Amino acid sequence: MTTSFRIGIAGLGTVGASVFRLLCGHRELLRARTGRLFEIRGVSARHRRRERGLDLAGVEWFDDPRALAAHPEVDVVCELIGGSDGIAREVVETALAAGKPVVTANKALLAHHGARLARLAERHGATIAWEAAVAGGIPVVKALREGLAGNRIRRVYGILNGTCNYILTQMRETGRTFDDVLAEAQRLGYAEADPGFDVDGVDAAHKLALLAAVAYGGVPRFDAVHVEGIRHVTPLDIAFAEELGYRIKLLGVARMTEHGLEQRVHPAMVPAAAPIAQVEGVYNGVTVEGDFVGTTVYEGRGAGGGPTASAVVADLADLARGVRLPVFGVPADRLMEPTPAPMSRHEGSYYIRLQVVDRPGVLAEIAAILRDHAVSIEALIQRARNPGQGVPIVLTTHEVREEAMTAALARIGDLASVLEPPRMIRIEPFRDGEPAA
Amino acid sequence: MTTSFRIGIAGLGTVGASVFRLLCGHRELLRARTGRLFEIRGVSARHRRRERGLDLAGVEWFDDPRALAAHPEVDVVCELIGGSDGIAREVVETALAAGKPVVTANKALLAHHGARLARLAERHGATIAWEAAVAGGIPVVKALREGLAGNRIRRVYGILNGTCNYILTQMRETGRTFDDVLAEAQRLGYAEADPGFDVDGVDAAHKLALLAAVAYGGVPRFDAVHVEGIRHVTPLDIAFAEELGYRIKLLGVARMTEHGLEQRVHPAMVPAAAPIAQVEGVYNGVTVEGDFVGTTVYEGRGAGGGPTASAVVADLADLARGVRLPVFGVPADRLMEPTPAPMSRHEGSYYIRLQVVDRPGVLAEIAAILRDHAVSIEALIQRARNPGQGVPIVLTTHEVREEAMTAALARIGDLASVLEPPRMIRIEPFRDGEPAA
Repeated sequence: MTTSFRIGIAGLGTVGASVFRLLCGHRELLRARTGRLFEIRGVSARHRRRERGLDLAGVEWFDDPRALAAHPEVDVVCELIGGSDGIAREVVETALAAGKPVVTANKALLAHHGARLARLAERHGATIAWEAAVAGGIPVVKALREGLAGNRIRRVYGILNGTCNYILTQMRETGRTFDDVLAEAQRLGYAEADPGFDVDGVDAAHKLALLAAVAYGGVPRFDAVHVEGIRHVTPLDIAFAEELGYRIKLLGVARMTEHGLEQRVHPAMVPAAAPIAQVEGVYNGVTVEGDFVGTTVYEGRGAGGGPTASAVVADLADLARGVRLPVFGVPADRLMEPTPAPMSRHEGSYYIRLQVVDRPGVLAEIAAILRDHAVSIEALIQRARNPGQGVPIVLTTHEVREEAMTAALARIGDLASVLEPPRMIRIEPFRDGEPAA
Repeated sequence: MTTSFRIGIAGLGTVGASVFRLLCGHRELLRARTGRLFEIRGVSARHRRRERGLDLAGVEWFDDPRALAAHPEVDVVCELIGGSDGIAREVVETALAAGKPVVTANKALLAHHGARLARLAERHGATIAWEAAVAGGIPVVKALREGLAGNRIRRVYGILNGTCNYILTQMRETGRTFDDVLAEAQRLGYAEADPGFDVDGVDAAHKLALLAAVAYGGVPRFDAVHVEGIRHVTPLDIAFAEELGYRIKLLGVARMTEHGLEQRVHPAMVPAAAPIAQVEGVYNGVTVEGDFVGTTVYEGRGAGGGPTASAVVADLADLARGVRLPVFGVPADRLMEPTPAPMSRHEGSYYIRLQVVDRPGVLAEIAAILRDHAVSIEALIQRARNPGQGVPIVLTTHEVREEAMTAALARIGDLASVLEPPRMIRIEPFRDGEPAA
């Protein structure tokens, strides 16, 4: 006998509408795969009369999504409203308090309140499934929580924001400026009218905090993520990156170091031959390094109705099959509180671009400061000549601690012959680490 | 209270020994993630005294792996012996008949006997988890069975054999012949003394049959897979591929067509810019196209102790957490028996290389035959001149049905001016399909 699985959908925006269409279109497929009949028991959205191209006949409408979440004939609640507080949070809390599992795409909510909500869920025998909150349809949360459960995670890093990746890809392919490409992306609907959430790295930082939580079994800590966006990436940096064998990507990186858990979102130079460098346009990609598995890579569309609905329904299918795992992979009362590693302790290589007066002795001054801070130069480009005027000097360093790098750059920036604040972009290495055996 | 999860390991070769080391090294990690204490209750292998670098003190040794499988204090059996029949099969059957779940890396066993074993498992309330059987540590079985459960799968294709990919990568990078590179791979331990299982495509076909089963909810049918290996790939084909913007990979491809389920393993030209083309050396890569998720890609090491152990232990972690899914994603009695689509009905583009006498009129003869079979030429390379002697002609076609292509090639091969049997390699397109919304 097929028992039904009654779903409440709170939020009928792009994602909610796609979930609705997927569930209606693939009812038989889902029944074959889970043995359950997926039934949309009710929906809720702000505007009842909006045209969404959905056949809502026979589906109960709730003006208040909290009433939907609390309804006794709703087995599971899809929270697709969004936002870290307000109504989305109330819907989730209502469902969990009633012992119902929640499926959500809401990274902001979980990045800010994840640990508390996980405890609430467990108190009531419920859980929150959130594959859709990170990297769209790519099942990377499942990979970390389950598929790589036998590994100690060395590092997880990825391209987690499609808007930024689209802009950086366009900048590289066309040589245009950030502002120019952003304006076009806004016209095309790839970027919001208020783009700060994306281009300043906030969205990627929400996602990174969640990936780090599941990779390291810790409380998600958005406030512990070092965040830089892509506004200051210039066509010149992109061109130099290419020349040096790199591509510039907005990366989210989490790794456990001797100083604690490092979590950072910033533009990074990645080797052009690394799999992540090939992830272009609106695609997302995540690389996970585990001690036994070695390096694994996951790619796909990171946003949009279809891909996000795919992730929401995957979580629904798990729940329908009786799979109910802790929110962040380990029980909420066992989540660690890892010490955040300060960026000053970060160790890595750096790309530095300086705008200097083209006159003898300038390079000697710079080199002396770098030497004083034990920063060792790996490559240097100084090609254009423009005597007495400004020319760029670009260099990459060997591995060095960030506090040494920033101290050296502060002194370099104070030199009279240095015309602009030095520009620094971190280099993120690709490691094809030999797995343990 | 932590309950223990008692594991029996049958087979202590490379994979079995790695599983042993992982379980011993990550006991606390696994306890945190699953809430269970993983205990190796017993092991069995052919040679008790062999030096494996494992501390077997306190672990019961079984001379007969069937006795291990049947032991009442063993909760789950890892079958890491290998082989489609014989002792491996008996161990699996013994465990299942006793109601115990089995974790295995044995693709041959499942490709040949999967449906029968799945029924046996379900009759006794057990299951078989086999992430390790395909693509090493990459959690692609989990992705298909769970992470993409909301999608109708359009196509799944991948590089499933690391030995072949290593050989093809080496051939491309060094220009050497298949025989030459194979001999080196054998010296280095990347290829077996008897390499047929790998280079003739049998191993990839086992894996493809399993991926197709879980993608389409069907009985795995190794005998329905069209199989060609890589022995006849020449440095000349690799060079022409490069010139035409392709790379040659041994692909396994499954897709549902109007003629039934197409399953094939053969050398294929893939666009050099496609993610799968970047998967080099011993790496494996799988691309899955779903109707809602669009195109997703999974990459990692496809073999070796560590990666395979990672997959085995992921399955153990699922079982320890109480996750118990049907062997091929849907209950055994609901597995479909899809009609195999004959290769004659395959539709695609082709790369053709002909060795012809360099004299006027030859091309006209060939073009006329192609026209007669409605084969339309997309690109043609005829560059070297060698009047009266042999020169290569290379062409690619637009999409055409394979029976037309082979009929045309049979006639072309009969031409007096064609000096060698025509060489044909299928072209596999990359589709960045717009997902549904």
